[in-house]
Amino acid sequence: MNQTIDVTRAAVRKPKPLDSELGFGIYFTDHMALMEYQDGRGWGTFRIQPYGPLTLDPGAAVLHYAQAVFDGFKAFYGQDGVVRVFRPQKHMERLQRSSARLCIPSFDEQQALEATLALVELEKDWTPKTPGTSLYIRPVIIATEPFLGVRPARSYLFYIILSPVGSYYPEGMNPLRIFVSDQYVRAVEGGVGEAKTAGNYAASLFAGEEAHRAGFSQVLWLDGVHRRYIDEVGTMNIMVRIGDEVITPPLSGTILPGVTRDTTLTLMREWGLNVSERPIAIDEVTEAAHNGTLREVFGTGTAAVVSPVGELVYRGESIVVNDRRIGELTQRLYDAVTDIQYARVADTHGWTVAIT
Amino acid sequence: MNQTIDVTRAAVRKPKPLDSELGFGIYFTDHMALMEYQDGRGWGTFRIQPYGPLTLDPGAAVLHYAQAVFDGFKAFYGQDGVVRVFRPQKHMERLQRSSARLCIPSFDEQQALEATLALVELEKDWTPKTPGTSLYIRPVIIATEPFLGVRPARSYLFYIILSPVGSYYPEGMNPLRIFVSDQYVRAVEGGVGEAKTAGNYAASLFAGEEAHRAGFSQVLWLDGVHRRYIDEVGTMNIMVRIGDEVITPPLSGTILPGVTRDTTLTLMREWGLNVSERPIAIDEVTEAAHNGTLREVFGTGTAAVVSPVGELVYRGESIVVNDRRIGELTQRLYDAVTDIQYARVADTHGWTVAIT
Repeated sequence: MNQTIDVTRAAVRKPKPLDSELGFGIYFTDHMALMEYQDGRGWGTFRIQPYGPLTLDPGAAVLHYAQAVFDGFKAFYGQDGVVRVFRPQKHMERLQRSSARLCIPSFDEQQALEATLALVELEKDWTPKTPGTSLYIRPVIIATEPFLGVRPARSYLFYIILSPVGSYYPEGMNPLRIFVSDQYVRAVEGGVGEAKTAGNYAASLFAGEEAHRAGFSQVLWLDGVHRRYIDEVGTMNIMVRIGDEVITPPLSGTILPGVTRDTTLTLMREWGLNVSERPIAIDEVTEAAHNGTLREVFGTGTAAVVSPVGELVYRGESIVVNDRRIGELTQRLYDAVTDIQYARVADTHGWTVAIT
Repeated sequence: MNQTIDVTRAAVRKPKPLDSELGFGIYFTDHMALMEYQDGRGWGTFRIQPYGPLTLDPGAAVLHYAQAVFDGFKAFYGQDGVVRVFRPQKHMERLQRSSARLCIPSFDEQQALEATLALVELEKDWTPKTPGTSLYIRPVIIATEPFLGVRPARSYLFYIILSPVGSYYPEGMNPLRIFVSDQYVRAVEGGVGEAKTAGNYAASLFAGEEAHRAGFSQVLWLDGVHRRYIDEVGTMNIMVRIGDEVITPPLSGTILPGVTRDTTLTLMREWGLNVSERPIAIDEVTEAAHNGTLREVFGTGTAAVVSPVGELVYRGESIVVNDRRIGELTQRLYDAVTDIQYARVADTHGWTVAIT
């Protein structure tokens, strides 16, 4: 569709933070896009208005029952001075799938994409320019009906906000120390682990805090049935390089179908690497460490692109990976993906959408 | 503590619905109680103000990561004309435990209890009088910090709203048809199933909708590891009476520690019944149906007190319970609990708190 998007401009523009102050998800731009759903009427159209508080009834379903989904992707200031959004269609498709799992009515992906691009265009000046920085895009759908019965709501709000974010690695990539949790579980087959839904993040907080207190950056989640197979690391997908095989858990329902997972798998396959999407037990990782075939472990996600893992601690045993140095493949993937994002090389995959 | 609660009265009172129109969680009273938390300052004090929209930043953590807990309990209009709240301390204790699991800072239970009672007192006239009706009390704690990083928020809102609710059984108790889900899972050990947190309810919607479409009232959840042991039914705890034993799943981390579960267990033990809190496989229920020892199945929860189950359908097989009639124990428990709630008998357990 080719919708008309009503734009109400902010009377006052906020001061923009310095690139060095950005961090992640702290600052929000001057405008946001919104669209409402009402049972019987369906989705309306997007409008853009000044960024400001939402008013929600205290009985709104999202506050009680977390009927909510979101996604996250980025726009980058290219070396040619053009701002480009990375794989927005893919993220909107995932938002649609997350919505279906959460009983949120389906929306027009093209319409949502257009609203996103219109908003990014309006806020283009908020895209930071320092290498590694970007403009983070967060579409969210929340259930707004004020009703305390447990059933899918009859009204929703779809909104999109933007946040300029700093480099994930202001001082260069730094391999992470990871705690392997065999006490807490993030998701299980038959649950909502593969949806980008609010509740999955709430469920991860406690184990994350424990890990932080013990000096770790993230938790590596094991599967909920056997407590043996690796699922995800923190809020990233995980990849393990053993010998000449790069292994990542399959999309079997418990893990998020990461877009960066897809991007890096695509590149590695093009490079002729031996890539497997298969279950991998933590014991296989331990064993590979013992027999010297464990070469690299890294997370993939929108925030960091790739995150090298330098050490895993599982049941008191420390598994050091690649002498706590960044792996050669980890670095190659980071460079390849960011080269496309910042237009340092041609985008031969059609992954970026330029804002003109 | 003995806090001073600031009260701002609503200028206009809403018309009160007829008892016959009430339903569940549709109408809200004229006032609500609120209290804020800020990192460094801790919790403030409760104030009571007119019921009205909350203003939340679009980046508020609850909307993205569902860091939220709630509870639900009731006030009843007694046959002596006195309004009584049922087991409020027990519910506040549970809200505290839910908060701890979700990394929400602990609050003063006595303070929350006092605010609840003050609000109910102010809104006493909203308590419906028809037998079976009540004033539902919903305390909620949500993360309000506008920050997109995944970690516990640094600001929260604790609010309490009231909703007059109708009889769960306006036409008398009606045994439910239940679909046993072996495809979808509500919770798993190591997860947040035992916390009353928003995400658990979002996670239940899809299976619930499937069951409704197929003509069932609720889903019976099996455990996430073996898909064999019964966990909960819809949003209720479940009890099964086989021969002379009443069995309910133990509080092992995946099920909600129901207050009505506790109330009914207490009464049954006082009555000298043989009550077991132990894992019970769905096969044990099927087998008992086949050999004629399955006597009653019922759910327990605040909304309905007890809900008789007339039929379970598991993998295409129908298990009819007690010829689809209300069981003798189910009825006895319903009568005993509601007799205390509506002050038709003396409250010898100290479960009710009178609003004077």
